[in-house]
Amino acid sequence: MNAPRPDPVARPDAETYAIVEGLVAAMRHAVLGCLDPATGAPHLSRIAVQPDCDNVPLALLAGLAAHSRALQADPRAGLLIAAPPGAKGDPMTEARLSLQVRAEVAAPDPARRAAWLARNPKAQVYIDLPDFRFWRLVPVSGLLNAGFGRAVAFGPQDLPPLMRKTPA
Amino acid sequence: MNAPRPDPVARPDAETYAIVEGLVAAMRHAVLGCLDPATGAPHLSRIAVQPDCDNVPLALLAGLAAHSRALQADPRAGLLIAAPPGAKGDPMTEARLSLQVRAEVAAPDPARRAAWLARNPKAQVYIDLPDFRFWRLVPVSGLLNAGFGRAVAFGPQDLPPLMRKTPA
Repeated sequence: MNAPRPDPVARPDAETYAIVEGLVAAMRHAVLGCLDPATGAPHLSRIAVQPDCDNVPLALLAGLAAHSRALQADPRAGLLIAAPPGAKGDPMTEARLSLQVRAEVAAPDPARRAAWLARNPKAQVYIDLPDFRFWRLVPVSGLLNAGFGRAVAFGPQDLPPLMRKTPA
Repeated sequence: MNAPRPDPVARPDAETYAIVEGLVAAMRHAVLGCLDPATGAPHLSRIAVQPDCDNVPLALLAGLAAHSRALQADPRAGLLIAAPPGAKGDPMTEARLSLQVRAEVAAPDPARRAAWLARNPKAQVYIDLPDFRFWRLVPVSGLLNAGFGRAVAFGPQDLPPLMRKTPA
């Protein structure tokens, strides 16, 4: 008699929360997946992203770019957050977090702008161009892949611990 | 009188084809964006991918994974191919290629299996598990981002030069 096959997707625990918090704290770019308004197919792009004051992923996007037009048409998107480039080892065994998010334009906010520039001073060149906007990518659910065959699912009820700081 | 604003998305030329060919030749992993069958929202994951014999991106996927079930339900997907990790510099200025693709299960083929293992001997551990399958991610269109403000669009008519070798 065979033992039942274990569920390959586990529930979050303290260790997996620590991994997720590390990924979110270190994120400076990520891959965004939005829905191409013309075809309905996924369109992927690398974007600049940092944790907002409440750890919600915050993106700085040019309005002219395809992803901005797509998010305006449909705010449902995916976000893949991985360890910074240059980390050693096989990328297929490194932790990465796949979030389903809802994109919202963030209101102009001097504190948000200052926090962004503190982490990325080069953004000074374009952050005030009228075409650029901050977007909050509010997590709906998540899947942490912590290496080959090790996956952890985060439902809406599991996400608040990722956002411990007080929102603006 | 203002000059007309230049189109921010250029047409491919020899230099951009060379960049794309380099990215495709070096790719060993990429980010896949598929459509979550439950929500219709984009779902992103890092996958193992190599150029197939005709340079079409070839993925080796576990059937149990969410992306395999999603591609079975809807073969429209996005693929983001970037330079190998460890490349120096700012990831936002490095070249990356965003493809819209159509996913097709590839028939078992000893030559394809051998070519995959030659580039990734560690795959020996799981390549023959019954759950694993090769998928061809056939490009439909593409967008090369070759650094800040430098984007090149590839339509269906522009893609054949990326696939110069004879398909199996």
